[in-house]
Amino acid sequence: MESAKKAVVLLSGGLDSATTLAVAKAQDYELYALSMDYGQRHRRELESARKLAAFFKVKEHRVLKTALGELGGSALTDSRIAMRKGKAWKPGAQIPSTYVPGRNLIFLALATAYAETLGAEAVFIGANALDYSGYPDCRPGFLKAFEAAARLGTRMGVSGSPPKIEAPLLHLSKAKIISLGTSLGVPFELTWSCYNGGKRPCGKCDSCLIRRRGFKQAGLDDPLLKKGKGVRK
Amino acid sequence: MESAKKAVVLLSGGLDSATTLAVAKAQDYELYALSMDYGQRHRRELESARKLAAFFKVKEHRVLKTALGELGGSALTDSRIAMRKGKAWKPGAQIPSTYVPGRNLIFLALATAYAETLGAEAVFIGANALDYSGYPDCRPGFLKAFEAAARLGTRMGVSGSPPKIEAPLLHLSKAKIISLGTSLGVPFELTWSCYNGGKRPCGKCDSCLIRRRGFKQAGLDDPLLKKGKGVRK
Repeated sequence: MESAKKAVVLLSGGLDSATTLAVAKAQDYELYALSMDYGQRHRRELESARKLAAFFKVKEHRVLKTALGELGGSALTDSRIAMRKGKAWKPGAQIPSTYVPGRNLIFLALATAYAETLGAEAVFIGANALDYSGYPDCRPGFLKAFEAAARLGTRMGVSGSPPKIEAPLLHLSKAKIISLGTSLGVPFELTWSCYNGGKRPCGKCDSCLIRRRGFKQAGLDDPLLKKGKGVRK
Repeated sequence: MESAKKAVVLLSGGLDSATTLAVAKAQDYELYALSMDYGQRHRRELESARKLAAFFKVKEHRVLKTALGELGGSALTDSRIAMRKGKAWKPGAQIPSTYVPGRNLIFLALATAYAETLGAEAVFIGANALDYSGYPDCRPGFLKAFEAAARLGTRMGVSGSPPKIEAPLLHLSKAKIISLGTSLGVPFELTWSCYNGGKRPCGKCDSCLIRRRGFKQAGLDDPLLKKGKGVRK
C-alpha cells in the first residue's frame, strides 16, 4: 500500500539534506528527492545524492540540469572566483563568494513545480540559519516569503492546499543536526560537504570547517574522514 | 556611454513580452533579455524572441535551458495532454491544461538570479491579469509575494537594493496592450502567440483567440496574419 502523503526533498548530497531526508522519512512521507546539476565545482555531491536516495529508498530521484552555473557570479560555479579559506563565516561578515545568486529561490521554485505535478503536500529543504555561511536565501524570513509566493502562484494554492515549505533544521546547530542525523540512522559516510571536488575533502573551505566543528561539538567522529583517511594533504 | 540602469526582461516571444521589452526600453533601461527553452510545444516562440531581441538592440539575450518540461504536468510541454480549443478562458472557469506548474515562479527566480549577477535594478515580466488564461502565477498578489521573497533571499536585498518586479501590462486589456505596443513601435509581425508550433497560428487555442479578440477590439489588423496569410486551415 502506498502512503498518501508525498514530500519533495531537496537533496544536495550534503549532511544537512541527508538529515532532512531522514526527517521526512521519519514523518512517514513518501519521498521524492530532487537534486540539481547546476555546474557546481563540487559535482561529487551528486554522486552522494544518488547513494543517499538509494539508501533511503526514495520513490523517485530526479536530477535536474539547471542553467544556474551559466549565469555565473559565484565561486561555486566559476573557478575564476576565489573562495575564502581557513575561516568559517561569522554573523556580521560579508556574504561570501560561494553564495550562488538566487540558488534557493530557483531550487525551491523547481521543487514547488515538482510538488505540483505530484500533488505533494510538502517541500523539504535543509536550510539552516545558525551554523551556515551567511547566505540570505537560508534565512527564515525568506522561506516564509517564498511559501507565501508559492501559495499564490500555484494551482494547489488556488484550490486551498498549497505545498508547505518545511525546513526542519532551520534553527539547529551543526552539532545538533549531526546528533539528530545519527539518531535517525543517516549514513554520514555517504554525504559530501566540501565545496571543492576531489577524492577527499579539502578541510579548508567554509563547508569543511563547519562540518568539522559540528562533529567535534557533537562528540562524534566524521565517518567520511575515517573512510577516506582524513582530509586532503 | 552606457546607461547605468539595467533591467532583465523575460522575453517569451509573444506580444505581451515584446510590448514589455518596448516599455522597459522607453524607460531608458539597458536591456538584458532572458528567454527559456523549457521543452514548450511552441518552440517557435524562441525564434520570435531572438528576432525581437535583435530588433530592440538588447545588450545581451540569454536563452536558458530549464528542465521544466521534464517535470511535466502541462499541455504546453506534454503533447499527450489535450488543450481546450475554440473558447477563451473566462474568470471563474477551471485553470486550463496549458498552465505550466511553477512556470512564472521558476522564470522569475532565474531572472532574479540573472539580475543579481548583473546588478540590475528591475526584472520586467509581461504578466497580465485581465485578458489572460487564468493562470495563478499571473496574479498581482503572486508578483508582490515573489518580490518580497526575492528581497529577502538575495544579496541585493540584504544590501538594501532588491530588484523590483515590474509588470507594466498587469492591468491592461489585450486591446490596450496592442495599442500601447503599436505606439511604442513593437513589430508585432515578429511575435508568436500560438500554443501550437507550425508555420502559421492555429487560430483555435486560448492564446490565438485572445490575440484575435485583442486586435479586433483595438481596431487593428494583426500583421502576423497578414504576413502569413491568415491562420492554419
